[in-house]
Amino acid sequence: MTRFSLSLLAAASLAATTAHADEGMWMPKQLPQIAKALKAGGLALDPAKLNDLTAFPMGAVVGLPGCTGSFVSAQGLVVSNHHCIYGSIQYNSKPDRDLLKNGFYAATLADELPAAPGTRVLVTVDMKDVTAEVLSAQTQALTGKVRTDAIEAAQKRLVSACEADAGHRCNVYAFFGGLQYQLIKQMEIRDVRLVHAPATGVGLFGGDADNWVWPRHTGDYSFYRAYVGADGKPAEFSKDNKPYTPRHHLKFASPLTSPLNEGDFVMVAGYPGSTARHRLPREVDFAFGWQQPARAKAMGEAIDLIKAETAGRRDGEIKVADRIAGLQNTYKNYQGQQQSFDGSDILARRQAGYERLKAWVNASPERRARYGADIAATESLLAEREAIQRAEYLAPFMTPQLLSAARQLYLLAHERAKPDAERKSGYQDRDLPRIRAGQQSLERRYDEPSDKRVAAHFLAQYLAQPAGSLNPAWVQAYGLKAGQDEAAIRAQLDKVYAGSKLADTAFRLSWLDKDVAAFKASDDAFIKAAVALYDDDRRLENRDKELGGKLQKAYAGTQQALIDYHASRGEAVYPDANSTLRISFGKVQARSPGTDGSNWTAFTTLRGIVAKHKGPVEAGGEFNAPAEQLAAIKARNFGPYGVKALDSVPVNFLSTLDSTGGNSGSPVLNKRAEVVGLLFDGTLDAVISDWDFNPKMVRSISVDSRYMLWQMSVVDKTTRLLDEMGVK
Amino acid sequence: MTRFSLSLLAAASLAATTAHADEGMWMPKQLPQIAKALKAGGLALDPAKLNDLTAFPMGAVVGLPGCTGSFVSAQGLVVSNHHCIYGSIQYNSKPDRDLLKNGFYAATLADELPAAPGTRVLVTVDMKDVTAEVLSAQTQALTGKVRTDAIEAAQKRLVSACEADAGHRCNVYAFFGGLQYQLIKQMEIRDVRLVHAPATGVGLFGGDADNWVWPRHTGDYSFYRAYVGADGKPAEFSKDNKPYTPRHHLKFASPLTSPLNEGDFVMVAGYPGSTARHRLPREVDFAFGWQQPARAKAMGEAIDLIKAETAGRRDGEIKVADRIAGLQNTYKNYQGQQQSFDGSDILARRQAGYERLKAWVNASPERRARYGADIAATESLLAEREAIQRAEYLAPFMTPQLLSAARQLYLLAHERAKPDAERKSGYQDRDLPRIRAGQQSLERRYDEPSDKRVAAHFLAQYLAQPAGSLNPAWVQAYGLKAGQDEAAIRAQLDKVYAGSKLADTAFRLSWLDKDVAAFKASDDAFIKAAVALYDDDRRLENRDKELGGKLQKAYAGTQQALIDYHASRGEAVYPDANSTLRISFGKVQARSPGTDGSNWTAFTTLRGIVAKHKGPVEAGGEFNAPAEQLAAIKARNFGPYGVKALDSVPVNFLSTLDSTGGNSGSPVLNKRAEVVGLLFDGTLDAVISDWDFNPKMVRSISVDSRYMLWQMSVVDKTTRLLDEMGVK
Repeated sequence: MTRFSLSLLAAASLAATTAHADEGMWMPKQLPQIAKALKAGGLALDPAKLNDLTAFPMGAVVGLPGCTGSFVSAQGLVVSNHHCIYGSIQYNSKPDRDLLKNGFYAATLADELPAAPGTRVLVTVDMKDVTAEVLSAQTQALTGKVRTDAIEAAQKRLVSACEADAGHRCNVYAFFGGLQYQLIKQMEIRDVRLVHAPATGVGLFGGDADNWVWPRHTGDYSFYRAYVGADGKPAEFSKDNKPYTPRHHLKFASPLTSPLNEGDFVMVAGYPGSTARHRLPREVDFAFGWQQPARAKAMGEAIDLIKAETAGRRDGEIKVADRIAGLQNTYKNYQGQQQSFDGSDILARRQAGYERLKAWVNASPERRARYGADIAATESLLAEREAIQRAEYLAPFMTPQLLSAARQLYLLAHERAKPDAERKSGYQDRDLPRIRAGQQSLERRYDEPSDKRVAAHFLAQYLAQPAGSLNPAWVQAYGLKAGQDEAAIRAQLDKVYAGSKLADTAFRLSWLDKDVAAFKASDDAFIKAAVALYDDDRRLENRDKELGGKLQKAYAGTQQALIDYHASRGEAVYPDANSTLRISFGKVQARSPGTDGSNWTAFTTLRGIVAKHKGPVEAGGEFNAPAEQLAAIKARNFGPYGVKALDSVPVNFLSTLDSTGGNSGSPVLNKRAEVVGLLFDGTLDAVISDWDFNPKMVRSISVDSRYMLWQMSVVDKTTRLLDEMGVK
Repeated sequence: MTRFSLSLLAAASLAATTAHADEGMWMPKQLPQIAKALKAGGLALDPAKLNDLTAFPMGAVVGLPGCTGSFVSAQGLVVSNHHCIYGSIQYNSKPDRDLLKNGFYAATLADELPAAPGTRVLVTVDMKDVTAEVLSAQTQALTGKVRTDAIEAAQKRLVSACEADAGHRCNVYAFFGGLQYQLIKQMEIRDVRLVHAPATGVGLFGGDADNWVWPRHTGDYSFYRAYVGADGKPAEFSKDNKPYTPRHHLKFASPLTSPLNEGDFVMVAGYPGSTARHRLPREVDFAFGWQQPARAKAMGEAIDLIKAETAGRRDGEIKVADRIAGLQNTYKNYQGQQQSFDGSDILARRQAGYERLKAWVNASPERRARYGADIAATESLLAEREAIQRAEYLAPFMTPQLLSAARQLYLLAHERAKPDAERKSGYQDRDLPRIRAGQQSLERRYDEPSDKRVAAHFLAQYLAQPAGSLNPAWVQAYGLKAGQDEAAIRAQLDKVYAGSKLADTAFRLSWLDKDVAAFKASDDAFIKAAVALYDDDRRLENRDKELGGKLQKAYAGTQQALIDYHASRGEAVYPDANSTLRISFGKVQARSPGTDGSNWTAFTTLRGIVAKHKGPVEAGGEFNAPAEQLAAIKARNFGPYGVKALDSVPVNFLSTLDSTGGNSGSPVLNKRAEVVGLLFDGTLDAVISDWDFNPKMVRSISVDSRYMLWQMSVVDKTTRLLDEMGVK
């Protein structure tokens, strides 16, 4: 799960499970339901404390884009994963100051560096059930597109009212597939600075080779600091800003008086992105029987094409590096999931659970009347959605990036003509900075040769399908015809790309302020294509809204049946992950079996770093521990962080904590809510846990805080930070 | 240890150890000394049976160049490792018939293919102590060069007499550092044919990435057949030859009635190449304190240079592939050894053992008189040898391959002028076919650009040393001067290489028959250099003989002290490995710890193949299991080879068997001497076992015969061979 939260699978969710041993990403408000299990597991705090988002310890946990962090000092110091802060390290690196390679340590506050543009620290200050407002009686009477519109309008009203409190960002999140809605209010700290990152040889030790792998030896930690204006409120970057004083911050567990051992209770608070534990059997079947294999195949082809087209062209390689990494990560994830799924009984179990649910519904006329229609409707609506997904899955691969950019700009021109409150979500004034940043950052990501090669390759696949199954608008927008081969497509794309200046950033950004008439008058090839596609894009949008409105109603009903079924058995149900704050609990635990031919121990040690070290060249430099670190290990200079039973300092550990992408950087807390580690990964052979949790196999991987503190004190000598965090 | 037997460290050996738990590569004649331990371990045969080289089972074990094999049918079928037979698979591969990729299966005897030139199956028929002949009373009175000459002369006489029996090859091997000598007589079968090899995706599954690694999933097996003339005697290849009928052959253990389990007794018979368990402390210190690090550094540089110089040049890449693989294997081995050595107490323990030996010697005037002088002399003679090795270690790296070829040819011209019996070892008539094959095969190995680049690089290192420490002959032979930089050296080498036609195979081979005068008259640049170097080469040879004669005497005395010391304590001492037939015994056993963060189980399974499989492209295709195999695994088509407790077929297993390079392909036998596997590797973190055996860490890796037979019957359907071997 390293690096990229998998948002591809977000959206709705459904079906049938409750809490296994350590399964569950619980909403804070659900904690009373599992208080007994928490106490039994070893929690030394009052479970009710975890329920209060503004109290200790939850008040110290913050969101970062796609990741989680936590305050670890009274001066706004935030710790998260190295891979979560990677973009800011990269942003501040220069050829003569390679922070990626060498790491970074600000010796004083004044040396702290602005994080990459768009970096935010988000402090959740309120979480409120708004189901009644989103699904008013009037809305509940609607169906199809008008229902979708009414839900979106209600969400916009709630967000707008919430954001009247300056310096905050609010969002409405759907839980249980649209059965419940929560309005989440977060203080949005916009002046974020890079404080400390270890060398890549520590923070990314093992690189791609070790991604999703145990045994693991990655020092995946780095530090930001949150700054606010003189008034204590969020502000844009300014030299005059001051470190933010959080209401609460976490403390590190003492290696001497609170050493973490195998079997110990641990919990993790963070922002897991997406799981699919409650999906219907047909969704599981569709995902593993068609959708993920089809996407993986396309991703594999895209990776090969982009690599081939940029090989030896350093500029191109740098520009596509993030995209390649993202594709490879998802590709590896899909492969891991598929491997676990194939030959497993996951679908059969899901089917059996669903049959039990339906039997329970059908066993009572009242329940049949209450849930029956929704369950039946969900099935047929999902079939409808699947047909659309099959027909359109190539779209993200075959669409030139500049055409996507042009479509967003043209839609913005239409929306900007309306009063703010009436605009589509994502195109309101509050969204403009994000849109601008996205359009701007294309300059660092856009590589024309590989973009064109990929587009031509997948357009050829698309056009090779029966002409009757194609969307004529998509074909005509490029001046193409059904059945054309890649050479013909390529020739036409050459003309289209040559006919657009959108690759020029200033030119592209100039369209942020232009009106619809200006777009219609343009002869830029991609702008013209966007204009030509507009009506059809809206048609598809309305089609999806029509289906979405029906599906929300039916899916919510099915999910309610699930919750009621489990409640009848005295079982609590946690909602699938949706990038909102959750708590998981479990324990530090080895795993048998590990990879075939091995069992896994709960901890790795410094010895493993020495064993894996290969230097700066071999294995692409992915196992290149710093010389000072190797010297300290050789000298057995363990400080107070050595563990006698390990005869070394623990580096990473395994736990049964239930987590997924988005949890990266989450503080792992012991029974007294002291930091014992940072969660940063899972293992590939259990990545199927997003769909199906097998307590025997699922383990989260965390960096042990003793390794962090050892590296910081013994090797990197970051005294100022250790003092600030109260580490002796 | 895969692929290449490490002969760099061969030669003498000495010091202080006896049998740990499972330590020891025992000479067959020593078995009475350890019969009790064998019975206690579980051997169900009479240990005395193992003593007879011509009886079952030892009579079925054969030598292959650098490897071991065994007869597994009455028709001369030989099984060994895929990596031992690799050269013959490669030799028979063509672009349109890629045996390496697809594997090979001869459906009938007539389809069996000639093995690579020079392939031999060697059946040890006699092993005789010839110490009294080699070290006659007259020889014992000599020292220095004349002693070396006398020893060599005696060996030649013994070999010559032995080889009067046509079809046999004889050699005298030194044991215990020249304390004892054995004359070994082997039937030399010269018509060897390739019968069956699985696809590379089975036989080399895991490739370099998994070399020396556990968990392991390599199907490292292949089959040869030994053919002889109509008279049953060894003969050159002929269509009329018949399969050889061995006196004994091994049978596979039944998976149903003799399943191999963890904890079971196993033994292995084979030809381990070289160990250094009995070396003196100063030799250990020299090896790890200077020699191996210096060689590893040079090897690493050579690897990088050869790769850089052949990159993208497919012809060059193919020619250097073997050399690169050999260098990388040794490089990885040295790194593994060094990592285990650094920070260990190996040297201290060796020192302590040596001190105990000396104390025992000094505790008695009689013993002091008997061993004292030899022990003291050994120390100072070793110091002398170390100085030479330091001064000359760059020679093998800086010498152009064609110069080495020219030196061998010129020396041959000198030797051929003498009666056969008076020639140097290695230059007698019996050696001519081997010399010719070596000179011939240069055409497939010689790549001028990389050869020149490496020579220039290391000559620059050599010439950068103080002028007084250089060998003037080596500098002048190339027309170089002390202190020249690489560019100047390169310019001179360009002239030398351009001035030689020795790269032409026909031209090079023509020198096999020319006389000394012809060499002296030649203006070929490398021939001229060889002629110029001749006197100095002989000077160095005589210097080494002088030192060798002294060292043999002293070292043998020290080794005798060691044996007598242990005998006084009732302990048996096995000699260091020296490429002669040995037996090790131990048991199937898991390992804790495994790699840091894991423990190792004793068996891997088919599941691990599926988990590691990456297809033909990713990871260089090193994890590319055949589709038919994956399908059989998915279908759980285990035949009789599935093991219930593993819920799969066992693929590879760990055992405590003491082994080293040269043991590759050795049959692993159960207590009834049935084949349960083929030994093929060890683990990198225990490769230091060549110097120091740690029973907790040392494990041999073997392919489980159940995996072999499963693949052969269920996937590859090699029915003819299974029937021939009596496998149901």
